[in-house]
Amino acid sequence: MQKFIIDSPLDMHLHLRDEDMLKLVAPHTSKTFAGALIMPNLVPPVTTKEALISYKNRILKACEGDTFIPYMTLFFQGNYSYEFLNDIKDEIIGIKLYPAGITTNSETGVSSMDVDVLRPTLEIMSKLNIPLCVHGETNGFVMDREKEFMPIYESLALNFPNLKIIMEHITTKDAVELLNKYDNLYATVTLHHLLITLDDVAGGALKPHLFCKPIAKRYEDKEALLQAALNAHPKLMFGSDSAPHPKHKKECCGCAAGVFTSPIALQVLTELFEKYEKLDNLNAFISLNAQKIYDFEPLNKKITLIKKEFEVPNIYEYKNENVVPMYAGEKLNWSIESIL
Amino acid sequence: MQKFIIDSPLDMHLHLRDEDMLKLVAPHTSKTFAGALIMPNLVPPVTTKEALISYKNRILKACEGDTFIPYMTLFFQGNYSYEFLNDIKDEIIGIKLYPAGITTNSETGVSSMDVDVLRPTLEIMSKLNIPLCVHGETNGFVMDREKEFMPIYESLALNFPNLKIIMEHITTKDAVELLNKYDNLYATVTLHHLLITLDDVAGGALKPHLFCKPIAKRYEDKEALLQAALNAHPKLMFGSDSAPHPKHKKECCGCAAGVFTSPIALQVLTELFEKYEKLDNLNAFISLNAQKIYDFEPLNKKITLIKKEFEVPNIYEYKNENVVPMYAGEKLNWSIESIL
Repeated sequence: MQKFIIDSPLDMHLHLRDEDMLKLVAPHTSKTFAGALIMPNLVPPVTTKEALISYKNRILKACEGDTFIPYMTLFFQGNYSYEFLNDIKDEIIGIKLYPAGITTNSETGVSSMDVDVLRPTLEIMSKLNIPLCVHGETNGFVMDREKEFMPIYESLALNFPNLKIIMEHITTKDAVELLNKYDNLYATVTLHHLLITLDDVAGGALKPHLFCKPIAKRYEDKEALLQAALNAHPKLMFGSDSAPHPKHKKECCGCAAGVFTSPIALQVLTELFEKYEKLDNLNAFISLNAQKIYDFEPLNKKITLIKKEFEVPNIYEYKNENVVPMYAGEKLNWSIESIL
Repeated sequence: MQKFIIDSPLDMHLHLRDEDMLKLVAPHTSKTFAGALIMPNLVPPVTTKEALISYKNRILKACEGDTFIPYMTLFFQGNYSYEFLNDIKDEIIGIKLYPAGITTNSETGVSSMDVDVLRPTLEIMSKLNIPLCVHGETNGFVMDREKEFMPIYESLALNFPNLKIIMEHITTKDAVELLNKYDNLYATVTLHHLLITLDDVAGGALKPHLFCKPIAKRYEDKEALLQAALNAHPKLMFGSDSAPHPKHKKECCGCAAGVFTSPIALQVLTELFEKYEKLDNLNAFISLNAQKIYDFEPLNKKITLIKKEFEVPNIYEYKNENVVPMYAGEKLNWSIESIL
């Protein structure tokens, strides 16, 4: 039976939440990934060293027994001092910037994306070599939000040439094209944005479990993202943006945004790269690119996938928490055989 | 307190379903409307005289005691004969054409929109002066489906100049513009498409109760529809497309398309036309235009609305059926005071 080995897979954009939901979802990443960049949008967001270390310890506890490193991020604020960032810099891999209110738990994000307003913090980050991770959406029409953010990315890239800027979970052809225009722009892309368009979310029946922010876009966008991923574009990293919400908050009258993909990401990526005969590029997309961009060496971990049917559970549960994964109840072509 | 009288309101696009759902929803239209054009997409669809008359009788029974006429339609099929249509023509107000699979219960619709394939039936309809009501969407990308259908409308309008063609539930600026291009093209527009865009459906939390087909589009589309309605464009009629589904089919992992607006349509339209100081045009939009386009005289019915708060129920129920209305639990500025 066909096998494929993934070397130290990294998920460079992950939501682990907290409390029981953390305990439910974290092992689904820590089991099969060597590390993950952890989003700081808790309630309240992670903005102090104490909160950061405490959250890291809760994550490590939830992942106990697994070879796994959570790469922590701070929630961007305009008033971080040089002293504070200098003191915390070895504890973090980057700082995540959210425009206020743009997605789950982002209410305390920045209210202005004006470069001059952001300048003090971004200059400190440049000096200290702390990467900036950005949720790049305006508050415009839902299908235009990322495209409208492109000039802001350009302005950031031009004004802070020594700052590594990561366009998180890109969803458009425009963002892929921008990657090639500025040396200091990088990006993550999710699994689901390589697979779905708005048609999958709302073209037939409405699918709340595929509803996410940024929303899935057009076919030409998906195609551009897919080609960049399959060809292991050196500035593009895998970041699942796996974002669990309990079932009752997805199947209701006002469904929360987020797709839970952690337990299926490696299997589906293997299937996808195999389908396009690009398996040779998968390790770059899922690990090596991130190592180079962020300049770190992850724990050594080898995941052997085998071409054997895997039926995705309908739901994952822990105590009172639950979450429905992408492809719930469906069959995948690849399974995880062993983890070393 | 401010009052406004609507004269014989007509809903020129309505789904009443069947069985208990029919009994639940029909009175919410028959109480306040003088008549409604009834969609034929039952399971199986209404394609025979027996089915049509039987359905009409079930509707009349569900509306017992109300001054109300259900204007019946047949489900378009390519093989209707002259004899059949000539025999049934006094029982129907039009024939509804669905591309196969395009919306709820449309699986047996036409598989080709090729004019030459449709020609035999459409020529008979032209001769017998039976209007054609069309669900105008291609099976393309969800945001483009109506726009892509415009050349098909043009081809129908050009090939059958004596056929009245109604573009049902239009949702785009393109469709509004097409109205002015061909004498024999008319349209209905829903309440919700005058009020919402895709942002309301999927821009914040995902709102299954606002999910409909055609899906709500962009701001410029909503604005074009709103201006046409407010100005009582003589070729545009109100058609709610009120389309009930039980709550469990809306708040689930694959939500059905349709917004239930029957109980709130008159109140919200009055509020909307008042807001834009166009109340003088409301009777044309909601009754007179349809009378002229379809050439009929409805029952005389006067609905007096009063500017007094009305709290929309969270749910309407009958036996095992239920349905959540648009604006569930919210407050409207206008109430229905009396019906004569």
